[in-house]
Amino acid sequence: MSDTRSKRPHYELHYWDGLPGRGEFIRLALEEAGEPYVDVARESTAEHGGVRAMLAPMKDRQAAVIPFAPPFLKIGDLTLCQTANALLYLGEKHGLAPSDEQGKYWAHGLQLTIADYVSEVHDTHHPLSNALYFEDQKPAAKARTKAFLEHRVPKFMNYFERVLAQNPAGDAWMVGASRSYVDLSIFQIVEGTQYAFPLAVEGFDRAWPRLAALRERVRALARIAAYLESPRRLAFNESGIFRHYPELDHRGLATSQPG
Amino acid sequence: MSDTRSKRPHYELHYWDGLPGRGEFIRLALEEAGEPYVDVARESTAEHGGVRAMLAPMKDRQAAVIPFAPPFLKIGDLTLCQTANALLYLGEKHGLAPSDEQGKYWAHGLQLTIADYVSEVHDTHHPLSNALYFEDQKPAAKARTKAFLEHRVPKFMNYFERVLAQNPAGDAWMVGASRSYVDLSIFQIVEGTQYAFPLAVEGFDRAWPRLAALRERVRALARIAAYLESPRRLAFNESGIFRHYPELDHRGLATSQPG
Repeated sequence: MSDTRSKRPHYELHYWDGLPGRGEFIRLALEEAGEPYVDVARESTAEHGGVRAMLAPMKDRQAAVIPFAPPFLKIGDLTLCQTANALLYLGEKHGLAPSDEQGKYWAHGLQLTIADYVSEVHDTHHPLSNALYFEDQKPAAKARTKAFLEHRVPKFMNYFERVLAQNPAGDAWMVGASRSYVDLSIFQIVEGTQYAFPLAVEGFDRAWPRLAALRERVRALARIAAYLESPRRLAFNESGIFRHYPELDHRGLATSQPG
Repeated sequence: MSDTRSKRPHYELHYWDGLPGRGEFIRLALEEAGEPYVDVARESTAEHGGVRAMLAPMKDRQAAVIPFAPPFLKIGDLTLCQTANALLYLGEKHGLAPSDEQGKYWAHGLQLTIADYVSEVHDTHHPLSNALYFEDQKPAAKARTKAFLEHRVPKFMNYFERVLAQNPAGDAWMVGASRSYVDLSIFQIVEGTQYAFPLAVEGFDRAWPRLAALRERVRALARIAAYLESPRRLAFNESGIFRHYPELDHRGLATSQPG
């Protein structure tokens, strides 16, 4: 995409290389928008990329806007800190969210609930501290994950399923009559949850049929389908938010709860 | 404030009674905006208040917009889910945030980082599950709180202090040259942290002088000062986010770290 670089400011996604993590929610939106972007940490240092370049805006002692942590998104002089904030911006600029007032705030509120879910998923493998390895907090991880699978996964998934069921425009998309960044994020958390806890969410498609259909609907969007086949898409792995540790999984624990 | 009710839609804050919690961030913004509002759970049931009325929008099987959890804010037909989303709206409508594009997104990004801090504070006393009592997860709470005080409090407070120091408009306010909802939220988390962990943050004002000055600057805002003296302000207590459990506190642990 280097041919567009000289023409206008392009998006710079600042996030770690090697894991989908929180950056993936922004990546999916940029891909669906069809916007060229630079994934800074994944560029070579010769192209002003790499981890040092990715983190540089956080360390800038002159900047007015200071990101707390990756991911953040830059376009020209504008810096957008925090995943949901970047999506709010992309939604407005690229038709990835409703343009009416209620629709815009409804989409953003849903994204913030998705962010809460993502934080809870992270804490299943790091319930005590990010400064400790998983192996050093495994008993607490087991207790937290069991409660998460038993209580929280059904609570969140029942809620998102109900949002689809109650959408006055039909149950094809989360908000209104067309796809938004919320749908892309739902795709990612459903995929991630099935990756991390395959036994616990056995029967996902029966328990939450509208979410399962939405997952497939997003996967079939032309730009998303092309992206998922590209080397730009990073697979889930045990450095990310959604990690598959077999000792934390429990067959049927999330899907056997009453709706 | 009932005299204004018949004139125009008024804000309805939906949050639990008896604790400041996440609702307090919205309450502070409404108070500083000088907007009349109804704190639904704290009204009598004869006035269409109470907990059942507070939760009703979450249980509505016809509504297009469904809050996941309190707090949420309603004005007329508009429903604003999630604390930071409600503040985004109030900031735009009532001059509680910068109106330029970067300023608006910068303020919101900071609020989302404050929300992350609030979630981490909550998990100090509930590291394993909300479905368990504090007493049933005390060993994990001790471990998580120690890591939080040692690593996370300094990381967040150093960051917020640096945001003040690097504000091109001066270090009086977090974003730009006048007070925003971000300053009100910083006031609340500084107060809350000092309430919950008085020993761990001994010397707070020396460690983070700009944040300490901001706390006092917010406290002295005319409308905030009046609010803090009113019965509408709820004291911190052990039902909220910021809880004082002496066994979790460690003298100097958060303030003795290098900056």
